[in-house]
Amino acid sequence: LVIPLQLYEQFVKEFNKNRRSDLASRNLVEICETSLAYLLKARRRDLISKVPEKQYFSFEKRGKLSRPVNRELFEEDSERVAKFFDALSSQKEKKLSPLEITRACYTLAISFSCMVDLEKQGDQKTPGTFFEYLICHLFARKLGVDPKTRIEVLNLDRPASLPTDWIFDLGVNRPKFHLPVKTSTRERVIQVWAHQRVLDGVYGVGRFLGVLVCLAETKLDHKKLEVVEICLPEQWRIYQMFIAQMSRIYYLDVPKPYEPLNKMFPRISVKPFGAFFHEVAQLCEAD
Amino acid sequence: LVIPLQLYEQFVKEFNKNRRSDLASRNLVEICETSLAYLLKARRRDLISKVPEKQYFSFEKRGKLSRPVNRELFEEDSERVAKFFDALSSQKEKKLSPLEITRACYTLAISFSCMVDLEKQGDQKTPGTFFEYLICHLFARKLGVDPKTRIEVLNLDRPASLPTDWIFDLGVNRPKFHLPVKTSTRERVIQVWAHQRVLDGVYGVGRFLGVLVCLAETKLDHKKLEVVEICLPEQWRIYQMFIAQMSRIYYLDVPKPYEPLNKMFPRISVKPFGAFFHEVAQLCEAD
Repeated sequence: LVIPLQLYEQFVKEFNKNRRSDLASRNLVEICETSLAYLLKARRRDLISKVPEKQYFSFEKRGKLSRPVNRELFEEDSERVAKFFDALSSQKEKKLSPLEITRACYTLAISFSCMVDLEKQGDQKTPGTFFEYLICHLFARKLGVDPKTRIEVLNLDRPASLPTDWIFDLGVNRPKFHLPVKTSTRERVIQVWAHQRVLDGVYGVGRFLGVLVCLAETKLDHKKLEVVEICLPEQWRIYQMFIAQMSRIYYLDVPKPYEPLNKMFPRISVKPFGAFFHEVAQLCEAD
Repeated sequence: LVIPLQLYEQFVKEFNKNRRSDLASRNLVEICETSLAYLLKARRRDLISKVPEKQYFSFEKRGKLSRPVNRELFEEDSERVAKFFDALSSQKEKKLSPLEITRACYTLAISFSCMVDLEKQGDQKTPGTFFEYLICHLFARKLGVDPKTRIEVLNLDRPASLPTDWIFDLGVNRPKFHLPVKTSTRERVIQVWAHQRVLDGVYGVGRFLGVLVCLAETKLDHKKLEVVEICLPEQWRIYQMFIAQMSRIYYLDVPKPYEPLNKMFPRISVKPFGAFFHEVAQLCEAD
């Protein structure tokens, strides 16, 4: 196994023991460092971006292409990633701008994923699990509580529990977060709203803040070397109106077609991931 | 291409022109005939059934195993399949018992799927599409209307339409059917309830009868040669209580763990597929 994959296994072990340890954070920084070192030896291939105002490239090794990397969000080294984790552990991450936080997290997630793309064959699971654990770790550190993945549903006549995405319960008179995490959504995204609907139905509307975190919606045509974003804004509007209301949707690389949703009714708040750290205190207030 | 796959391509062409033609029905009978002839040359391998009261076998060819086949539901030849389609075209299919109809449709669906399992490598899409078109064709013939797969959602300030599963609109004062079709459901099934919720929200509860049709929930362990059924009855109950209400769930091979749902609250009506043809008139009445 290449070094970043060895470190990934260590991270998974640590994460399964402790969702929000300093050691897990250090693991993550090392994964980023070694993934970037791995990618330094790969060739870069410019892609034809069909997305307005964004530029993408892929890493290339033995004829294999990695997923697209957003040029503006990618950091060449792990220095700022380390800086972000330092700030997070001393609760001073707001000294970094939302864009700086987004870039640090994007670089960490995308460098590991690109390394897997080049090193393994058709492995979507490892980058998906890594991304899910990474985001969960960041939320657990920021919110200061451990997540659950099952909740009691009702016990009128028989006990039942529902497997859920990550749930962070901040206690009495403070919100509970329902946190689904996906590298990309496509047509499966209706599940996110449906799970929110179940939580709303069981516990009452407004008890769980639904927060979806995604990496990107880019798709690479390996023959034409073209990058597009696969988005379904009209369907999101229908889900937001008729299934349930998600509070926030954070992306590391916000898809262009979802930006206008911030200014329409029903309002769907789609923001860069870094914004979370600047607005979380406000989200946690009952106002 | 082997003959049943050639006939499949003809069926798809015909189905895309006309959802409920006699020609499409004839294509289906021929597909069944030739799939069974293909399977006659394969070996049969008994499986260890972990499902109470059901026995399964697989077809085997060049070391490849087909999906499990329910011994009680499988017909050795296509005679009764042809008989069912004859009855359907003269609207006399109620002369056949629900079990006879279920067996005919099971034999058609499973023989084609097993043929694909042996002939192709990891192709889930062809059996899935075939099953979807088969069930849609049967509903279209029985209900006497063509299905839609997109519906208008609202036009308060902007037009929007939603891609849906098959929708059969029987006209004023008669129900509309919302027909999702899956070879098996697993964790993706929440989508079915979520789509029903959207339809209920847009058009009002009770306007669309949600009818899910599935082939089976069997899973074969290729090493141990054991068959199990993967079912989530507790989660179905939660979806039925908190997302939307499905009117019927028909299976060609009804999974044992879902049978008790017929006798619990909330009621989820899970029946063998053949029952549909005997109760459709009743479903269509406003009662």
